[in-house]
Amino acid sequence: MTRAPRSSARNGSGDAAGPSRRQLLIGGAVAGWGAALALGLDNAARPPSSSDTSSAPPAQDITGLRGSAVVPCHGEHQAGVTVAPQARSTFTSLDLRDEVDADALRRLLRILSSDIERLTSGRAALADMEPELALTPSRLTVTLGFGPRLVQRAGAPVPGWLAPLPAFGVDRLLPQWSDGDLLLEVASDDPVTVTHATRMLLKNARAFATIRWQQHGFRHAYGARPDGATMRNLFGQVDGTVNPAPSTADFDDLVWIREGWLTGGTSLVIRRIAMDLERWDLLGRDGREQAVGRRLADGAPLTGDGEHDEPDFAARDGIGFPVIPMEAHIRRARSADTGQRFYRRAYNYDDPPGPGETSRSGLIFTAFQADPLAQFAPVQRRLDELDLLNEWTTPIGSAVFAIPPGFTADGFVGQTLLGR
Amino acid sequence: MTRAPRSSARNGSGDAAGPSRRQLLIGGAVAGWGAALALGLDNAARPPSSSDTSSAPPAQDITGLRGSAVVPCHGEHQAGVTVAPQARSTFTSLDLRDEVDADALRRLLRILSSDIERLTSGRAALADMEPELALTPSRLTVTLGFGPRLVQRAGAPVPGWLAPLPAFGVDRLLPQWSDGDLLLEVASDDPVTVTHATRMLLKNARAFATIRWQQHGFRHAYGARPDGATMRNLFGQVDGTVNPAPSTADFDDLVWIREGWLTGGTSLVIRRIAMDLERWDLLGRDGREQAVGRRLADGAPLTGDGEHDEPDFAARDGIGFPVIPMEAHIRRARSADTGQRFYRRAYNYDDPPGPGETSRSGLIFTAFQADPLAQFAPVQRRLDELDLLNEWTTPIGSAVFAIPPGFTADGFVGQTLLGR
Ligand code: HEM
Ligand code: HEM
Repeated sequence: MTRAPRSSARNGSGDAAGPSRRQLLIGGAVAGWGAALALGLDNAARPPSSSDTSSAPPAQDITGLRGSAVVPCHGEHQAGVTVAPQARSTFTSLDLRDEVDADALRRLLRILSSDIERLTSGRAALADMEPELALTPSRLTVTLGFGPRLVQRAGAPVPGWLAPLPAFGVDRLLPQWSDGDLLLEVASDDPVTVTHATRMLLKNARAFATIRWQQHGFRHAYGARPDGATMRNLFGQVDGTVNPAPSTADFDDLVWIREGWLTGGTSLVIRRIAMDLERWDLLGRDGREQAVGRRLADGAPLTGDGEHDEPDFAARDGIGFPVIPMEAHIRRARSADTGQRFYRRAYNYDDPPGPGETSRSGLIFTAFQADPLAQFAPVQRRLDELDLLNEWTTPIGSAVFAIPPGFTADGFVGQTLLGR
Repeated sequence: MTRAPRSSARNGSGDAAGPSRRQLLIGGAVAGWGAALALGLDNAARPPSSSDTSSAPPAQDITGLRGSAVVPCHGEHQAGVTVAPQARSTFTSLDLRDEVDADALRRLLRILSSDIERLTSGRAALADMEPELALTPSRLTVTLGFGPRLVQRAGAPVPGWLAPLPAFGVDRLLPQWSDGDLLLEVASDDPVTVTHATRMLLKNARAFATIRWQQHGFRHAYGARPDGATMRNLFGQVDGTVNPAPSTADFDDLVWIREGWLTGGTSLVIRRIAMDLERWDLLGRDGREQAVGRRLADGAPLTGDGEHDEPDFAARDGIGFPVIPMEAHIRRARSADTGQRFYRRAYNYDDPPGPGETSRSGLIFTAFQADPLAQFAPVQRRLDELDLLNEWTTPIGSAVFAIPPGFTADGFVGQTLLGR
């Protein structure tokens, strides 16, 4: 219904400095008011005056409370890649409208970047109609990702890896959970904040793109367990133990891209993986531990005492069988080639069951790496060939995005791709 | 597929003391193993030994952390009715299987009550296959509610109010969000805890009932804002200001039932109300404030300064119009008859939008009262006739449940209905 505003003399987007944020937003508002009038809303027949939204709401004092925690959004990298994972994350994948060209993309990304600056610092977005919902950032971060079509529209060559992954035998991928042109990952410790920030971004993106899919993910509430405790997934497993953390020596080499417009950026693989809790329930605790090669109680390898002990893959039991089975997930997932590693940040999902079902749960598996084909794909290929966990897990969605580098106060996310 | 275990000589449920918890659970396990064998799972062809699930997992030390907070489940009333609302709540409505009679109901409610005792105190449920997910109760409560058919099956007369509400003009009710025989409301500050507890209860209920609908609700994260701060809904409104809190003088009179098997219990009305955020966006801040009669910034009435100031419904502006419009939600929702009040505990919902949509959000409106027809219905009827908010809100689901009283360590929820 609403159309992407095109650059035109009228809104001045042809001038050298590009449109001001205000002009951009007025463009959006105009489209919105068309819709308002079409709906015949009396109350709506008057665009919100600037005082409608810029009046700073009298803050409830949240000093020192978790709601006030801010993760600075500017920097070499997008802040959401390395921040300690927040309790809630919503992933929204968008399809660009047909008419969106490089100019429109630039406008869109400037608007989104302005929203990101304001929302992550606990301020209302411009034209934010619920400014009070912006006051509890609770470590809000917004991470933007680009699909192949967005890069094409920008007129740039598409990296070889920026495409659907090669097909795997275990895949049962559904289009409704796969691919897309533009990703918004919005994460915070407060679900109300995630909802509001997602909505603000989607409102401002609406003229440019439509929603392809959206996934809500969660972890333990912030503060429920010790800071830095590894998360548990819905199989009850400690998930994320062996993972190049941002503090790891070779994290930078593994994760950040170092050439072209993606310098300082990375890539993101998102796999929506259904976990069959019903059938998992039929497996005893020993079987569960053997499937992964780690203990459920504390995540220690079957050959060790503590979560972070190094697994001994050569160890054999009394009758000569490997203590960590040959088909165990952690054995199969580990490469001799230390370059075949990536940074995982999974979230649980739990959707209402459909008719006849008793659960619809799983993992929003995410991996960041400089090159998905060189780092992620070989591991997934090996797991595809053999991994006990495959018995209870099924990838039902898959997407790959280029994660552009961070931005500065006078720039925007994607500037290295689109220029000013 | 699995059938409700019937009382039989074999499991000894005929004896005076009733079946032991262990026997009850073995009954469940047997059904489960039938399914396991049907699936042909090698690993599963061995029921989990008791050591599989009762081995106390080595606790991560969460002393003093929010995860360790426990709400005692025993008492005159079910604990979830009056506890300060947790950050997350999942409502699941079940339909009883055809063959479930009073004996089976008694078994079911004993099992669920045992689960409730254990899970709310941070211990794994019996036969809990993910005992580690039980270790962070984070103020977990479980509230059971009974629909009319459950009461019938128990052989008791159904209270007149325990039926679908009278139809209202604004209703656009969908069966997929309405009614049901048994409600489980599972609430905690930790979403992983809610998911696990819900699943444990549903697993144990599976032989007796199927899922009719499930709704996930959320509020601000615990600790993000000051304790006791009124929640905000997704319209950005302060929601819940004028509400007979458990500390209010006449709370007991308004909420608790005082006769028959429901003595110490109450009733729950759940309305799933879609909020049209798209059209709400078209309304300016003034219009929004007039629709409710309160300010967005702080929830104060349009005639007052602070959230808890008494609204002055007689006040007129300079040109003689009422400051709080005649059609404003708070004017219409308030009765001259102070008996027409109820205790509200709403949760936000935000589901992934469908094709072509940009949001699918709203309120899981809940009201507790001694008599829904005398207290809730007249208010809803008045709002149905006139309420500015109706322009942007649509009830799409509705259910009424009897909330039985609380229970003691040697009893179970529903005992006053079903006897021992
Ligand atoms: C629902 C699906 C999955 C579940 C439940 C799961 C669970 C786990 C668990 C419990 C561990 C051990 C603890 C840890 O180090 O994190 C683990 C390790 C690991 N997983 Fe997965 N995983 C899943 C899918 C995947 C996928 C799709 C990949 C990549 C293709 C993957 C790659 C890894 C890697 C690289 C490790 C560390 C192995 C090592 O010790 O070197 N996992 N996973
Ligand atoms: C999505 C739908 C609804 C929204 C967004 C909404 C929002 C609000 C807001 C913002 C207030 C003012 C603050 C407060 O006192 O809580 C309020 C008050 C109230 N609402 Fe609603 N409400 C909704 C539906 C309902 C329904 C269905 C009922 C009952 C049938 C109801 C009954 C009340 C009552 C009794 C009050 C207090 C009125 C007073 O000041 O005496 N609301 N509501």
